[in-house]
Amino acid sequence: MKKYNVAILGATGAVGREMMKVLAERDFPINELRLLASERSVGKELEYRGEKIKVQLACDEAFDGMDIVLGAAQNATAKQFAPAIVKAGAVFVDNSSAFRMCDDVPLVVPEINPEDVKLNKGIISNPNCSTIITLTAINAINKISKIQTIVASTYQAVSGAGVGGPAELEAEVDALSKGEKYEPKVFAHQIAYNVIPKIGSESTEGYTTEEMKLQNESRKILHLPELKANCTCVRVPVVRSHSISCTIVTERAVSVEEAKQAIMNGNGVKLVDDLSAERYPMPLETSDQDIVFVGRIRKDLTNERGLAIWCCGDQVRKGAATNAVQIAQLLTK
Amino acid sequence: MKKYNVAILGATGAVGREMMKVLAERDFPINELRLLASERSVGKELEYRGEKIKVQLACDEAFDGMDIVLGAAQNATAKQFAPAIVKAGAVFVDNSSAFRMCDDVPLVVPEINPEDVKLNKGIISNPNCSTIITLTAINAINKISKIQTIVASTYQAVSGAGVGGPAELEAEVDALSKGEKYEPKVFAHQIAYNVIPKIGSESTEGYTTEEMKLQNESRKILHLPELKANCTCVRVPVVRSHSISCTIVTERAVSVEEAKQAIMNGNGVKLVDDLSAERYPMPLETSDQDIVFVGRIRKDLTNERGLAIWCCGDQVRKGAATNAVQIAQLLTK
Repeated sequence: MKKYNVAILGATGAVGREMMKVLAERDFPINELRLLASERSVGKELEYRGEKIKVQLACDEAFDGMDIVLGAAQNATAKQFAPAIVKAGAVFVDNSSAFRMCDDVPLVVPEINPEDVKLNKGIISNPNCSTIITLTAINAINKISKIQTIVASTYQAVSGAGVGGPAELEAEVDALSKGEKYEPKVFAHQIAYNVIPKIGSESTEGYTTEEMKLQNESRKILHLPELKANCTCVRVPVVRSHSISCTIVTERAVSVEEAKQAIMNGNGVKLVDDLSAERYPMPLETSDQDIVFVGRIRKDLTNERGLAIWCCGDQVRKGAATNAVQIAQLLTK
Repeated sequence: MKKYNVAILGATGAVGREMMKVLAERDFPINELRLLASERSVGKELEYRGEKIKVQLACDEAFDGMDIVLGAAQNATAKQFAPAIVKAGAVFVDNSSAFRMCDDVPLVVPEINPEDVKLNKGIISNPNCSTIITLTAINAINKISKIQTIVASTYQAVSGAGVGGPAELEAEVDALSKGEKYEPKVFAHQIAYNVIPKIGSESTEGYTTEEMKLQNESRKILHLPELKANCTCVRVPVVRSHSISCTIVTERAVSVEEAKQAIMNGNGVKLVDDLSAERYPMPLETSDQDIVFVGRIRKDLTNERGLAIWCCGDQVRKGAATNAVQIAQLLTK
């Protein structure tokens, strides 16, 4: 069996560390694992399957000999090193948003469009976390009847803002319990006991960059260029796992029973839908897992071809690290 | 100036206590204030404008001589005492959901349908908290062009579940910080660092009672019997103030500018909408106030006649106590 030389660019961040965990869990056939980061982290040691690996400097030469590079860095870093990665002959599976909308870069959710991986010219993008979770949840319904519109409101965990998010929430809760003041740094406002209806920066017509990703990325992943999606992204004081409340309208009416059956048979999803037993997807119960949980499936009361759906998924795993490793697994097939 | 004999039924609960505060703030013309509660609270003393008032037992005779009874009790208590209140010649302004959908009971948001107060036959109902906040937010838009559909997802504070809600959230946060276990009693699951997508009990077709109120009550308040509203109600770890993310579709297209202008000139609402300055409605900044804050106004990307809106309001005040006192004020005119 072939073994691969794999690098993680941005190995010391929340997503990079999770990628190491997922590679190990999935027994990815690794020959060499190279951990790359900025100057600040060089020399740090991270453990992979009981072995300590020293973090090396991310530079153009660092990708020589690599087969696959998993990107867990910011857009600027991804853009800086993409040419060197491609030149080195590696495939760059990038979690940043830098290349997602580029025509020659596939945007892949392995449960949805695995075949797109083959179209790569050296770069494959990992979609936005909320988009991955929402689309994984509704993919099985889209297979019954094409989705025309999505209206979504998100409940996004603080860890979506990186390792600093949970630290800030904890510090705020602690300060408040002592009657002390805490000046927010990661978020624009106090997130403890609050919700903040803005994620990302300003985009067009009052939407944020994060909100526009649902429409733009979903069109590409689902191969539905006419899809319309409206999204409101909201940060909530949850440590991990994003939740999304959405209504979807399909080409023909899909019944609640049909939708439930499809999700039960779907890939990467689990139906949790029993109000009387108090069973529905919740962030606390979906953290540290790769599955997207789907529930609260109802007829949309405003549209005969509509369904209302609630879903949760761990955005550091399925929304980022796991999805990237799944793409890497497709590359080894 | 006429002064009124006012009773509060359920005076010792969260809403009852807030009613006392609002009556005082608004300088309500009170002759006698009678505080009524169940056996357990009889003899307790509550302060009203520096004067201590003893809580009396809620019984049929307790309403004699009253002009207005503000109801802050559960449905069963409201139903039990409504006949005695009406018989005593008082008007019962009831915050429970017991009578909201009865044909001869007006359901009133004073900013929207104050004239309906006159139709009362002894009982006026105060609408559901999320419904009051959502409708107060979008009322000015409905005046420009009739609203046909509402799709809403809520972010509801723990105090919506009564005084036990905040206490449970605090106890959970405290227990978690010490690594101890806490068994939830008020909510079906841990609410700290979690969100729970079920409020109320099971109603029809997978919806909860709380979710169906938005459609049923909005139709009555707005006098729009054909209105379709789809709602997903979610509890979040916020102490006070509910937030609602919604899209609305109007008869004719209303531009974002028109909508903003209407809200700026609207009653009981404040436009807070400046992404670049990080200004948008948030529960922390809307608590302990009577105004509903509205922002994030955008064109709905899925419908040419649609708008996306975010609003927040203090559900104990405008969503309950303040709205009831406003109705009482209408009765004195």
